[in-house]
Amino acid sequence: QVDHFGFDDNLTFQQRYLIADQHWKKNNGPILFYTGNEGDITWFSNNTGFMWDVAQELNAMLVFAEHRYYGESLPFGNESYSDSKRLNYLTSEQALADFAVLIEHLKSTIAGARYSPVIAIGGSYGGMLAAWFRMKYPHLVVGALAASAPIWQFGDLVPCGAFFSIVTNDFKKSGTGCAESIRNSWSAIDRLSSTDAGLQWLSRTFHLCSPLKNLQEVAVLKRGLSDTWINLAMMNYPYAADFLEPLPAWPVEEVCKFLKDPSLSDKLLLQNVFQAINVYYNYSGQIQCYDMDETATKSLGQLGWNYQTCTEMVMPMCADGVSDMFEPQKWDINARSEECYKLWGVRPRPSWIISMYGGKNIYSHSNIIFSNGGMDPWSAGGVTRNISHSLVAIVIPEGAHHLDLRSHNPADPKSVRQARDLELCYMKQWIKKAR
Amino acid sequence: QVDHFGFDDNLTFQQRYLIADQHWKKNNGPILFYTGNEGDITWFSNNTGFMWDVAQELNAMLVFAEHRYYGESLPFGNESYSDSKRLNYLTSEQALADFAVLIEHLKSTIAGARYSPVIAIGGSYGGMLAAWFRMKYPHLVVGALAASAPIWQFGDLVPCGAFFSIVTNDFKKSGTGCAESIRNSWSAIDRLSSTDAGLQWLSRTFHLCSPLKNLQEVAVLKRGLSDTWINLAMMNYPYAADFLEPLPAWPVEEVCKFLKDPSLSDKLLLQNVFQAINVYYNYSGQIQCYDMDETATKSLGQLGWNYQTCTEMVMPMCADGVSDMFEPQKWDINARSEECYKLWGVRPRPSWIISMYGGKNIYSHSNIIFSNGGMDPWSAGGVTRNISHSLVAIVIPEGAHHLDLRSHNPADPKSVRQARDLELCYMKQWIKKAR
Repeated sequence: QVDHFGFDDNLTFQQRYLIADQHWKKNNGPILFYTGNEGDITWFSNNTGFMWDVAQELNAMLVFAEHRYYGESLPFGNESYSDSKRLNYLTSEQALADFAVLIEHLKSTIAGARYSPVIAIGGSYGGMLAAWFRMKYPHLVVGALAASAPIWQFGDLVPCGAFFSIVTNDFKKSGTGCAESIRNSWSAIDRLSSTDAGLQWLSRTFHLCSPLKNLQEVAVLKRGLSDTWINLAMMNYPYAADFLEPLPAWPVEEVCKFLKDPSLSDKLLLQNVFQAINVYYNYSGQIQCYDMDETATKSLGQLGWNYQTCTEMVMPMCADGVSDMFEPQKWDINARSEECYKLWGVRPRPSWIISMYGGKNIYSHSNIIFSNGGMDPWSAGGVTRNISHSLVAIVIPEGAHHLDLRSHNPADPKSVRQARDLELCYMKQWIKKAR
Repeated sequence: QVDHFGFDDNLTFQQRYLIADQHWKKNNGPILFYTGNEGDITWFSNNTGFMWDVAQELNAMLVFAEHRYYGESLPFGNESYSDSKRLNYLTSEQALADFAVLIEHLKSTIAGARYSPVIAIGGSYGGMLAAWFRMKYPHLVVGALAASAPIWQFGDLVPCGAFFSIVTNDFKKSGTGCAESIRNSWSAIDRLSSTDAGLQWLSRTFHLCSPLKNLQEVAVLKRGLSDTWINLAMMNYPYAADFLEPLPAWPVEEVCKFLKDPSLSDKLLLQNVFQAINVYYNYSGQIQCYDMDETATKSLGQLGWNYQTCTEMVMPMCADGVSDMFEPQKWDINARSEECYKLWGVRPRPSWIISMYGGKNIYSHSNIIFSNGGMDPWSAGGVTRNISHSLVAIVIPEGAHHLDLRSHNPADPKSVRQARDLELCYMKQWIKKAR
């Protein structure tokens, strides 16, 4: 059903989902249901090794459900993004309803699954969906594991600057002079951008695919750098991994090796910055030139996510350049609204997610694990303290963005091993209680 | 917001609500919030005396929120019912979202209401909305009183014949030969309808505004009679009342006074039937002729409700003419779907309400009182047993359709007095716990 909440159009579409049942015990063995987020579901399933790791112990079937408008689950095929009319059904509520209908479909069509307890699992936006799914459809899932889910990164529930502060701390801790070098780089870029020769030098030094022509394009470059630092903080895993980009172990430390001296001259500093971002973009040595619009794998549906941040998923962020290493940047909902209207013909409703999902007032719900990595900037908007005995927070101090959802690895710090053990323990309790 | 779940149209509309704050204690005294159902909100507020009766004791503000597409809360003004495009936003989900936004609006604009605990109260469909509102928006209401709310009259959650059985029992208990007379009336009508003279006789005898011309119109007459018996059972209050129509005390007994001998000849039997329905239609002596399409007050939005039963609110009903007094009538979803498509251009989704609101699997929710009248046919689909210590059922054996929501009355049976006391007691607990 393209529109679960209206009956005028009765259109339907094909939603993609992946099933792995080799460890499933028929006769109502549990189902771990990944609530897909903004990207290709095969990519998420390949980066959610935790589910594969625990399937055998839980005798569980794994289901990975793709989020509408991403991957191959396009309600209007290639036209899905063509206008605001067709994009109108890209909302979290519709996605949750898709999951509900899919679970009922699976339970009624797979022999032996009728009474299988289902657990929702997701990371990041998918973690929000997992938590919200348990809140709104508790009859369909006995519990939810919401990994690195910033359900409070809305309205004024948390300070808008917390996100960038965490990124900054990650860089501070990963090398002397590192955060300071990055903070100084913005004005260095500005000074060079003031002359044509400077623009040419920047374009050459950063190996840009298309040379910088004006300050708007410089802003895109800075935005790209900023996103790169954020992504590095999110992907700061203790071992080499390929999620947003192929990266070495502890990539922020690798990056910081190039950023030890913040007092260098502009050009020397920026040459170092380029070496640093090379760790992110060219770890595999394949890239010839940089397109600063493209900061992550294409498996991530950045276009759709942009639309979602222009409608429901309005997450205020700000930087002051003092307590953090970023360019000062106020949160301006009006400017954002204009931008969204130009881009998509829609305007954000910044308070809707709180109205819908309760903001901080969620204590009446149950059976949700909120896990967060202490190094993950998204933990700023996450639930990091227990709300009740069955709404529990797990903090992984050495963890980046949903590290706990990844496959076990010899390099895993103790905290994430313990987190996974605890998560498994809660899931077993939920399953046991459902019997 | 006309469409809470989409961002393409950013249209808004004016929702009507009534506020009574003469008993409200500022500084966060509680708010009793009536979740309006399918009709004019002033009419509901006049028939929900219970809220007015308890306002003083609870120091509560009363809010009566009108349901979109009813009364004066028309999203597209007089065009609201003009086509399926405009009707597309007439759903329970949109109505609940209206209530959510309204509560947040009231709390942020009324001085001293910021932390007021809110309790949702509703009857019938409004009772379902009250219960569903607590399920879906527990951050906005501390509890819900769902009076005569048939939340299980969907899918195969309850036998489709239970509804008509209860109506029949009411008539059986209200007079010897009464239900039997009604059961015999259907074939009597059929026999008379087989000749033109018979049709004329029926039209005269039933004082029809427009004479019967064919069997289709006879079906409408029978449908009207059937609805009348149902409405009488619903309105079988212990004192004279004016809800759907002005009626005497215990109207079913009044009706049954005319229906003592089921063995009469067709014409004598049907003359008695006319006397009987006169109790319903002409208690006040104002009516000159009968329009069998019009079986209740115009304050009820029958058109909108018909649309809702053609989309989400698909409540299977059936009669067998043996265990009940109605014409045998199977539940035929396909025929219904065709009918709905012809009428509105939409097709029902019979399983959606269960997917959305959980069907019988609602034990993870809390703080909902389900009250039901033992004589009310809608109790067939109601929750009549406790589900948990905080999802409680109250049965009022002598009660008809949400009698407990009406003003106290000297003729009230003890059971409804006790029910109201218990309801008040639970509400006090919720309020106390919210502080």
